[in-house]
Amino acid sequence: MELYLIRHGIAEEHQSGIQDELRSLTKEGRQKTEKVAHRLVKLDLHFDLIVTSPLVRAKQTAEILLAAGLSSQVEESNHLAPNGHIASWLDYWLKPKNFAENVQLALVGHEPCLSNWAEILLWGEAKDSLVLKKAGMIGVKLPEIGSPVGQSQMFLLTQPRYLL
Amino acid sequence: MELYLIRHGIAEEHQSGIQDELRSLTKEGRQKTEKVAHRLVKLDLHFDLIVTSPLVRAKQTAEILLAAGLSSQVEESNHLAPNGHIASWLDYWLKPKNFAENVQLALVGHEPCLSNWAEILLWGEAKDSLVLKKAGMIGVKLPEIGSPVGQSQMFLLTQPRYLL
Repeated sequence: MELYLIRHGIAEEHQSGIQDELRSLTKEGRQKTEKVAHRLVKLDLHFDLIVTSPLVRAKQTAEILLAAGLSSQVEESNHLAPNGHIASWLDYWLKPKNFAENVQLALVGHEPCLSNWAEILLWGEAKDSLVLKKAGMIGVKLPEIGSPVGQSQMFLLTQPRYLL
Repeated sequence: MELYLIRHGIAEEHQSGIQDELRSLTKEGRQKTEKVAHRLVKLDLHFDLIVTSPLVRAKQTAEILLAAGLSSQVEESNHLAPNGHIASWLDYWLKPKNFAENVQLALVGHEPCLSNWAEILLWGEAKDSLVLKKAGMIGVKLPEIGSPVGQSQMFLLTQPRYLL
């Protein structure tokens, strides 16, 4: 199983007076995310499912990936909201789904959650060693058997600039 | 300081009867590495210095990066040969050079050394959690002060397929 942890694009600033949950992608954020999505299509990436945080800026990012043709399915999950825990996600979301071994999932969410999740999958703990910019992504391969925590491998970490 | 750990391109097989040190890039390996190098130029990457393992396949990779214009200097270092140790490289190669803080170095070498070095820089030890294919690269940012071991951050890990 491969997980692609994708950070939402550039969004409106905190100080603009709207609730954090409702902040939208800016025009620049939308355009950059669209360019990244089209590059991923050219690279022949395809996700069996896009799972997104319920926050507006993440959902808009997921919709852009969907519209580009990177997947035909998108689903919201509260586990991907800021401060979500990977242990909960693994036990209460991933396991019950019983996916095939070769499934490719895109998880659209927030920092520092996503890079911390990747570190926990690789190393068992997080210490902010990975830089993941907005509209950037991390690719992690989970082991076929056993817990993925501390047993996974990373094959991709990229900022949007390398995908434009 | 930023380090770009670059694995040599596809080389002749072990069983072809020549010494490991003398194995050359294949035609495919050369072409793929050239494509990667040109893509890195387009992405505005530039290295103040390319340091290479003394093995032929690494030197040929370094020459391709040089010829593409990614740097104007290349230097050999035995520390980058297979089984080189990052502690020796840091103490006996990097420290005496006294580089400026914003220097960007490309290190051309071998697996599993390069991905292990990256893990040691990020987490203090290596456990084969990173996949680095031939002509792929890892970008690591070293801290401005203190030992880089366990204190560095990774901002890039890519296979050649994402750069073609």
